[in-house]
Amino acid sequence: MLVKDIKDPSFLKDLDINELNKLASDIRKFLIESISVTGGHLASNLGVVELTIALHKVFNSPTDKIFFDVGHQSYVHKILTGRADRFSTLRQFNGLSGFEKRNESIHDVWEAGHSSTSLSGALGMAISRDLNHEHYNIIPVIGDGALSSGMALEALNQIGYEQRNVIIIFNDNKMSISQNVGALSRSFNRIRSDKSYNKMKTDLKQALSKNDLTKAVLHGLTNVKDTIKETVIDSGIFKEFDIEYLGPINGHNFKELINALETAKMHDGPIVVHVKTKKGKGYLPCENDIDGMWHGVGPFNPKTGKFLNETPSNYKQWSQVLSDKLCDIASNDEDIICLTPAMIAGSKLEKFFAKYPERSFDCGIAEEHAATLAAGLAISGKKPFLSIYSSFLQRCYDQINHDICRMDLNVVIGIDRAGLVGADGDTHHGVFDIGILRSLPNIIIAQPKDSIEAQDLLYTAFKQPHPFAIRIPRGTIDYNSNNDELIEIGTWTKHGCLDDFKVVCLTYGPDVDKIAHKVMINDLKVLVINCRFIKPLDHKLIDELCQYHKPVVVYETDMLSCGLASSILEYLCDTDQHLEIHRMGIKDNYVTFGSNNQLRKMEHIDIISLFELLNDLLQRE
Amino acid sequence: MLVKDIKDPSFLKDLDINELNKLASDIRKFLIESISVTGGHLASNLGVVELTIALHKVFNSPTDKIFFDVGHQSYVHKILTGRADRFSTLRQFNGLSGFEKRNESIHDVWEAGHSSTSLSGALGMAISRDLNHEHYNIIPVIGDGALSSGMALEALNQIGYEQRNVIIIFNDNKMSISQNVGALSRSFNRIRSDKSYNKMKTDLKQALSKNDLTKAVLHGLTNVKDTIKETVIDSGIFKEFDIEYLGPINGHNFKELINALETAKMHDGPIVVHVKTKKGKGYLPCENDIDGMWHGVGPFNPKTGKFLNETPSNYKQWSQVLSDKLCDIASNDEDIICLTPAMIAGSKLEKFFAKYPERSFDCGIAEEHAATLAAGLAISGKKPFLSIYSSFLQRCYDQINHDICRMDLNVVIGIDRAGLVGADGDTHHGVFDIGILRSLPNIIIAQPKDSIEAQDLLYTAFKQPHPFAIRIPRGTIDYNSNNDELIEIGTWTKHGCLDDFKVVCLTYGPDVDKIAHKVMINDLKVLVINCRFIKPLDHKLIDELCQYHKPVVVYETDMLSCGLASSILEYLCDTDQHLEIHRMGIKDNYVTFGSNNQLRKMEHIDIISLFELLNDLLQRE
Repeated sequence: MLVKDIKDPSFLKDLDINELNKLASDIRKFLIESISVTGGHLASNLGVVELTIALHKVFNSPTDKIFFDVGHQSYVHKILTGRADRFSTLRQFNGLSGFEKRNESIHDVWEAGHSSTSLSGALGMAISRDLNHEHYNIIPVIGDGALSSGMALEALNQIGYEQRNVIIIFNDNKMSISQNVGALSRSFNRIRSDKSYNKMKTDLKQALSKNDLTKAVLHGLTNVKDTIKETVIDSGIFKEFDIEYLGPINGHNFKELINALETAKMHDGPIVVHVKTKKGKGYLPCENDIDGMWHGVGPFNPKTGKFLNETPSNYKQWSQVLSDKLCDIASNDEDIICLTPAMIAGSKLEKFFAKYPERSFDCGIAEEHAATLAAGLAISGKKPFLSIYSSFLQRCYDQINHDICRMDLNVVIGIDRAGLVGADGDTHHGVFDIGILRSLPNIIIAQPKDSIEAQDLLYTAFKQPHPFAIRIPRGTIDYNSNNDELIEIGTWTKHGCLDDFKVVCLTYGPDVDKIAHKVMINDLKVLVINCRFIKPLDHKLIDELCQYHKPVVVYETDMLSCGLASSILEYLCDTDQHLEIHRMGIKDNYVTFGSNNQLRKMEHIDIISLFELLNDLLQRE
Repeated sequence: MLVKDIKDPSFLKDLDINELNKLASDIRKFLIESISVTGGHLASNLGVVELTIALHKVFNSPTDKIFFDVGHQSYVHKILTGRADRFSTLRQFNGLSGFEKRNESIHDVWEAGHSSTSLSGALGMAISRDLNHEHYNIIPVIGDGALSSGMALEALNQIGYEQRNVIIIFNDNKMSISQNVGALSRSFNRIRSDKSYNKMKTDLKQALSKNDLTKAVLHGLTNVKDTIKETVIDSGIFKEFDIEYLGPINGHNFKELINALETAKMHDGPIVVHVKTKKGKGYLPCENDIDGMWHGVGPFNPKTGKFLNETPSNYKQWSQVLSDKLCDIASNDEDIICLTPAMIAGSKLEKFFAKYPERSFDCGIAEEHAATLAAGLAISGKKPFLSIYSSFLQRCYDQINHDICRMDLNVVIGIDRAGLVGADGDTHHGVFDIGILRSLPNIIIAQPKDSIEAQDLLYTAFKQPHPFAIRIPRGTIDYNSNNDELIEIGTWTKHGCLDDFKVVCLTYGPDVDKIAHKVMINDLKVLVINCRFIKPLDHKLIDELCQYHKPVVVYETDMLSCGLASSILEYLCDTDQHLEIHRMGIKDNYVTFGSNNQLRKMEHIDIISLFELLNDLLQRE
């Protein structure tokens, strides 16, 4: 069958091992070709081709619930459940999501985007199933990287306690986005490479082939449990959580996979099936990548493995601007420390980690711990830079509140991917951080308009004693070096039409220059204000604006609720002042995936919509 | 020495075992007498008397950093560091804090209030120490309850990976506030009660006494590690994290404690000292408590163990009102499930747990997992009630956002302890939840003014399809039964002076009736509005208010930033309407501890301040 002709996974039941291997090969080719055009998550999906096929062969979706932690590695699942024909629209506006979506298929029974939620979700489903006296299998697939996150361990703790039937597929590829860290990861490596591994494999093969022959007899018998136990060498942390363990299994060998899954199916109680896979399997540029360059990719040439969209030479990624500057500052200040929860590559921290290995810490996917680790460093006199994506910062809200802001510690938080992030969609847009951070005492929240301001803000952040968050968006910026100027905290700057203006536009981030430029070339009487500090506000400038009695547009591309305009309204209320304010921003809804331009347009927060409003106000008498 | 005369822990160095036992006995008496008058955390502190004394005997605070996870069990530490004379002011306004506070003593090197932060803090301190080439010990004391929290496990994962010197005191009393749950807890029990425990004790005693004699020789030698290893039977989960383990030690035996701590001090790399303690040790009413009644107490008669402040018979705890009603609703709806992160007693869920054991789940101190477990239940058709303290809800902000609100699931969140909570202070005030929740799409946020509305809101929450948060404060309320009336979502009610009013007061919660009552008896021309829905707002009523052109006071006792008034200002801005709004609420600062009345007064949000403002506005022409 052609990959594009697959309608649902039922055809797998009739395929033999050779046919399954052929299918795996076809799906790999399809993935490489398709993603080389659209971009997307390649390496993780290439790693789970056989595993996903085996899951859909052994279990009956959607009666059995198969779902993927995070969900970016669900492409093969999407193909097997009849969505191959939509892959040309992958991660595009109105197209196929890069994650599981319940509105896309009855086979998508859970949704995520953030790591390590699948086990809690699975236990919830298991409780529900058992209370309803129903019988089906619940099979979350979770990677070793996601298991370093506390909430996954919290879930294991209750899954082991409850002893309900859940089949946890532990997809062990030694990677999060980049190589895994942490003691657990080392423990998993020990299991992987145990000396008696070969012996175990032989034992396992015998045990499993026995199961295969006498499945009916064994079914439900207690000695299944013993059979499994015998095949186990070291079940690692799972034992501590009272969860049965089966493995490790070669995740690219259908026979081993199918036998192990059949065995797990017969097991009563929670069980982990440890499947060793190779991220990027079958495509050399991916297989050899340990830094995560091939985790999420743009279009590339499938023959050469070269990426097609190169950044223009004078442009840098926003995260690169911050991290390069951090390297500079750190060369003169030994107290600077860099922390990231598993985002060395994503946040362009490679250089800092190479240059200052003793001051660099990858905490793994563990945002909560990372934030409080930063507090522990700051309380003992260090100057930690906590680099974190906006949407994952949501994971450590309490630690930023209770540990960093309450103790008023000088932790500098580099909020990466702030604002809309395009193709990753609703789970990844970094549009909530202003709302949750601005009600925290002691914190300063800033967003630079350009690369010079970004560097000066970072420089400033380490020259003052409070928590200081610097938001930067996804994408690139024209790079210019700075002169280490201290920026006075809570000051905004004026741009565009400075005299005789009729309308004021307040905004922040790279839109400032875009808007000011458009105002200048169109000779519009619009004063543009760069609200580079979202907290504290520039009260003096707001007071000044109140004297002009001009309409003010506050243009935000984050959540309107609790945003910058909201903060300004609070200030005006408290000082008994009034401004005619027009708010633009994301209304009370989650934003889907697509290009940022498409998403802005859909949310009526694109630059064209802004200038329509500005022009309306300009034309008013 | 008299307990009150202790100035610092240096005197401990000269005490022998008999003197130490005498001191422990004196401190216990002091604690029971003192807390019987002031109230406070009793059971956990009685459990760590010997442990804390031993820590301060073996280590040198503040050079060595001794600190307590959460911090409510730091009373003995406070006594030993010269604060016994202030215990009559414990948890009182301007008095001694119930937690560690850096501004209280140089011996308080970390602050908390929320669980499970100490290990991340300790690693931060250790990294800082090592980078500075300094040499001192870092000794976090963490309970087994706190180890069920994901962030503590995240920290263990990196502590084991980093292999820096940290001495983790694992205070194992089988309890969080109430009895512990979870597979890990069972695993710890296995270690505790291993059959070869007695044999191990003998071995350990020999090994330790040997250490005691030849300490100088052993110091720094690699065979210390072997000595420790030999004494270990089952190191449980710590082994998986590559952390050395020593124990279990009888936490009420000075000789064992001191020897174990001395051994740990000589160890190179991270080590766990497993100390078995009895919560409430030395005071029978506490020792026999497995439900957590003696965790945090009010004044009591030390002779009888009876609590002095009884709730009047027609009054109920707010949490009791909700949980009783939940029982009612659950009797007619088999899909109702109750979840709590270790707060069965705190949130008065005992009755539900007894009546519906198969639908009751204590997740342990694991807020993140609990929230996503609720999502997993809701996605499979159940109706979970997630009971959670406001300040601990901060821990699962992302799960409420990413898993519950984004998927628009009908999870009912009972937000307990919303608003100021009095004596627990800054870490526990539930004043941030409105700000972080109201920018989330799909969620409904409500707070009842009285017990009838509380029950009707709960009834309503399960009759609609969205996430629904019901805030209730700490304390009691006059109880009346309800008739299961559906409350129209987003509707407010009018009270006080309905006609010919000159001023409007908007507020929520139990202040509504207090204010309305005061308005009536003083015949004030104030319309009082019960803003029982904080989201969505009652737009119709706000529009109506805009017609009256009367001044409006929005009275909140939560954070002003991003609060109700902020939301109203946003709505007025977007609809181009105007109201003269006066905001009252907590300004941009953390609030200390004391009685709620004192705290309200300090923050100028007490009822007297409110009526001063109302009267000013009434007298205006």
